[in-house]
Amino acid sequence: MRPGRRPRADGERTRRLILDTAVRLATVEGLEGLSIGTLAEATGVSKSGLYAHFGSKEELQLATVETARRLFIDVVITPALAEDGLGRLRALCEAFLAYVEQRTLPGGCFFAAAAAELGARPGPVRARVAAYQSEWIALLTAAANDAAARRQLRDDIDIPLLVLELDAVVVAANTGFILHDDPTVIDRARAAAAHLIDAAAQAPPGR
Amino acid sequence: MRPGRRPRADGERTRRLILDTAVRLATVEGLEGLSIGTLAEATGVSKSGLYAHFGSKEELQLATVETARRLFIDVVITPALAEDGLGRLRALCEAFLAYVEQRTLPGGCFFAAAAAELGARPGPVRARVAAYQSEWIALLTAAANDAAARRQLRDDIDIPLLVLELDAVVVAANTGFILHDDPTVIDRARAAAAHLIDAAAQAPPGR
Repeated sequence: MRPGRRPRADGERTRRLILDTAVRLATVEGLEGLSIGTLAEATGVSKSGLYAHFGSKEELQLATVETARRLFIDVVITPALAEDGLGRLRALCEAFLAYVEQRTLPGGCFFAAAAAELGARPGPVRARVAAYQSEWIALLTAAANDAAARRQLRDDIDIPLLVLELDAVVVAANTGFILHDDPTVIDRARAAAAHLIDAAAQAPPGR
Repeated sequence: MRPGRRPRADGERTRRLILDTAVRLATVEGLEGLSIGTLAEATGVSKSGLYAHFGSKEELQLATVETARRLFIDVVITPALAEDGLGRLRALCEAFLAYVEQRTLPGGCFFAAAAAELGARPGPVRARVAAYQSEWIALLTAAANDAAARRQLRDDIDIPLLVLELDAVVVAANTGFILHDDPTVIDRARAAAAHLIDAAAQAPPGR
């Protein structure tokens, strides 16, 4: 039997194709806009083939959220883990802005879109999106705490406030960039994030 | 003829009922989720009655955006116009946060939801939402410029950057409040907005 013919590997490949497509589509049509019909059209997989992979719409949505999370970890988080402290905080903001700017997904950040869409729709999908949004905030907070422990932050810095401001700036850049189709939005967010971090840094450069 | 029987007034009242319902529904189901069927169910107006008011889905969506804009002006903007300069900037941020906190609309800010939903869907509805988002930024900028003219801001303050940060903080609070059902999100945003404005103010209080 040749390796390319293993049914399990084919099934896994098809599932990945479906989910990668679903993540992209969801940033444009919404998670509620994902349907077996639309996905069949976008992937070329038959509707019965799609039903074989996902028993229900909720199962499809949850698997889509997990796929988007892995993408986010690969593209935004992992590269920034090479840095420590304040460098990691800067790298996380920069990697998020690059992920948006490079149109990694056609409708911008998957989680920003999902949070806005599902905010008023309680249920397991919203719970998953909310948990991953909290993980992102926890990651920014840990980097800022590490920066404080390394004496890279001024003593009077309110870390949760700094994290709130940084997250707000990069997420707003996502919305503005997509809504206005305007790349300068990302440049301004980059300047704003740098301004917030420089103002919080011990012995800020150039002052 | 008694005043209550004038057909034109009845038609106007029905149109308002439909649009007020559409604004609320759109913050939960999305503007794409608005359908003649859902609106008929939510308002008790017959489907044929609804078609008489709105010839197409796009016409209904555009009228919904206009209705949401009037609500935003009444609830957020008009009260803040009683203040000048830095006071107006603070009042605009506070009024926005109160509009979210008081659950004026079930899914939070109409325009934040619409921007996230329509970001990747160019067309007349997105153009209208983008124009009104720009008006909001222009209003914050005018208040900050007025504050600068009144010597209420430090000379080195970058006004577009300050406006970007304030808008980001209040819009992020909207998303977080709705996603996590957590009122402390609004309190933290209030503190963050005050922190940004105090840091930009001439002779900041308490320093």
